[in-house]
Amino acid sequence: MNKIIVQKYGGSSVSSIDKIKNIAEKIVQKAKEGNHLVIVVSAMGNNTDELLKMAKAVTKKPRERELDMLLSTGEQVSIALLAMAIHDLDWEAISLTGRQAGILTNSVHTKAKVTNIDHAKIKGALKKGAVVIVAGFQGINLNDDITTLGRGGSDTTAIALAAQLKANICEIFTDVNGVYNADPRIVNNACRIPEISYDEMAEMAILGAKVMHYRSIDLARNYKVPIVVKSSFETGEGTMIKEVNSILEKVIVRGVTHEKNVGKIVAEGVPDIPGIAYKLFKALAEKEIIVDMIIQSSHREQINDIAFTVAMNDFDKASKITQRFVKEVKAQGIISDLEVAKVSIVGAGITSDPTVASRMFGALSQEKINIDMISTSGIRISCLIKSENIEKAVKAIHKEFNLEKVGE
Amino acid sequence: MNKIIVQKYGGSSVSSIDKIKNIAEKIVQKAKEGNHLVIVVSAMGNNTDELLKMAKAVTKKPRERELDMLLSTGEQVSIALLAMAIHDLDWEAISLTGRQAGILTNSVHTKAKVTNIDHAKIKGALKKGAVVIVAGFQGINLNDDITTLGRGGSDTTAIALAAQLKANICEIFTDVNGVYNADPRIVNNACRIPEISYDEMAEMAILGAKVMHYRSIDLARNYKVPIVVKSSFETGEGTMIKEVNSILEKVIVRGVTHEKNVGKIVAEGVPDIPGIAYKLFKALAEKEIIVDMIIQSSHREQINDIAFTVAMNDFDKASKITQRFVKEVKAQGIISDLEVAKVSIVGAGITSDPTVASRMFGALSQEKINIDMISTSGIRISCLIKSENIEKAVKAIHKEFNLEKVGE
Repeated sequence: MNKIIVQKYGGSSVSSIDKIKNIAEKIVQKAKEGNHLVIVVSAMGNNTDELLKMAKAVTKKPRERELDMLLSTGEQVSIALLAMAIHDLDWEAISLTGRQAGILTNSVHTKAKVTNIDHAKIKGALKKGAVVIVAGFQGINLNDDITTLGRGGSDTTAIALAAQLKANICEIFTDVNGVYNADPRIVNNACRIPEISYDEMAEMAILGAKVMHYRSIDLARNYKVPIVVKSSFETGEGTMIKEVNSILEKVIVRGVTHEKNVGKIVAEGVPDIPGIAYKLFKALAEKEIIVDMIIQSSHREQINDIAFTVAMNDFDKASKITQRFVKEVKAQGIISDLEVAKVSIVGAGITSDPTVASRMFGALSQEKINIDMISTSGIRISCLIKSENIEKAVKAIHKEFNLEKVGE
Repeated sequence: MNKIIVQKYGGSSVSSIDKIKNIAEKIVQKAKEGNHLVIVVSAMGNNTDELLKMAKAVTKKPRERELDMLLSTGEQVSIALLAMAIHDLDWEAISLTGRQAGILTNSVHTKAKVTNIDHAKIKGALKKGAVVIVAGFQGINLNDDITTLGRGGSDTTAIALAAQLKANICEIFTDVNGVYNADPRIVNNACRIPEISYDEMAEMAILGAKVMHYRSIDLARNYKVPIVVKSSFETGEGTMIKEVNSILEKVIVRGVTHEKNVGKIVAEGVPDIPGIAYKLFKALAEKEIIVDMIIQSSHREQINDIAFTVAMNDFDKASKITQRFVKEVKAQGIISDLEVAKVSIVGAGITSDPTVASRMFGALSQEKINIDMISTSGIRISCLIKSENIEKAVKAIHKEFNLEKVGE
């Protein structure tokens, strides 16, 4: 039986006509090997940003339904051009918008979630031997409005399609040749990670590795979609993302990640009433704001400070919600801090071995870097520090765990 | 009862963010007067041409389905931005793609015909008091593929919607303040025509007046949609297009038009067999090529020359079909001529008054311009001449019929 392969090409992989032609050649070659190919593409280069700029020039607060109407055109351009490029190589191909590909979502414009895929049209085209090219990042809701899936949306489209079509593999093509154990722009001996588990990759993504969005990795884990992250421009094995059971017992620090796009918010002097923190975080959750680190500390009796971090683009919204909360519960006030950054290590089993955390803190302290907040989950340890220290911190931790010796 | 007004804004009317904001203000003002507004917009400025250029850079012969996928994004950008601009003025508006607006077409990609409109969504939005903004030029076929309506497609969308919604008027906004009785770039005392019949306007459009496409005027006539052509940038009454019965008895030369984008093809030495010309023109019609002038002339016994003209963009296709025909019927050969242009006069009753034609031919002969072919229909007389003489011809005819004295 023929293999079904889903490939996703990001914006940098289709940023020019030449690149589109180049990708078309790769695709046709793969198709000639007898594979059923479903290709998911993003908008060309910085097209999405340009469209956003236009919207912002029209109005300060564009409505999200209209933003989705606008932004979804970017991918539609890419799929048409890629289909033409494949036709030019005398191979059959058909482009499909998110809607035509049967991608149904909920109604949360600009960050919709895929609720269902009706893949009849895709299956039909594959049967006829055509390469199917699907616009990433977009779908429609039940009201027939165009929706977009937010950051990393094209990855989500690819993985959702791979899951539904029971694809043999989902190949994510990008401008780097895999996932690295630290940002190579900071750590010059950062190494490519040959193989990583869904959980580790999801944490890496949440914590700042830009290669894939954690939402799409969650989806891949749920449906056990094997993923490989590869370069569009070079050959190489890339990084395989899959269930890795064998290594669960062994403590391995997979990588060190960092994230500057975070902000810290502190609600000061909150009365110590049961359920009061829940009240705040529920309000944040209702606006789909993901809170990362949380620390509640008590200075005086029956008065707490609640500190937490959020992603930069949720910062304004989160501040407003916290302000409202502070007023409502008659707390003292609110402190905001944008001069913070988060450095994290990720690896299966690392939190079950106490030496790992202490080595991380030790590396930071040797560089005289103060730790503001700490949070850990099953497979990661994160520290919030001053943003000016972030590069020093990444380098020190990378060295402490000998990460320059991993992989190739 | 509230009036339903359909307005159409062409590419030059939405070529920049400022122009879009400007139009939004006009629209909101009109809406505040209590009108139900349906707005049809084209792609911004030369966006369609830019997309076409990209397609041509990918492949010499882009498939038409993919072209439609590509080109339809242009209008989608416009509708989203215009909706945002109206929201910014605190008025309700919703953008709809051709599909969302219920515009069904046949499957002739790049020049599809509207077959039906399911206006439920539009009606619903109008009821809620929203301005409805519809992407011009596009629809979907029964296979759920995106189609485009070809040249003048946005006009067609506007008039089809006006017909279906039983609109009180369809306002076509463009970069000139109405229809002129000659091209003002050639004839400096050309006059705006205050009122013109559908038939005359359709002929003017076919014969080279660029303001509207004849297809859309045909549609307007069939459904008796009153149209006014106005400037997006200036105020003024424009040109009213409607049924004008009162003037049918009077011979009026409405205007002189010219068209350089024509080519002449001659099939030489065609055997004189009954039905042989039909064979050629049937083959052309099957490819949706519109043949304008036709002359069949006999030089020797049982041998004819068949000469005809087509629009420039059908010229290559028509040449190939004629070549095949020439080979098949064992004719002598084919002559092509692109250095031709067509000058025409249009007006109700002009062909029933023989002096009109003779005055036209006289004006040309006084300028020493040879007439290559002549064709007439109920309300027009056209002459094919050398393209180098076209400006001289237009001026001479405009003067001959005192067209500088019409109108304002």
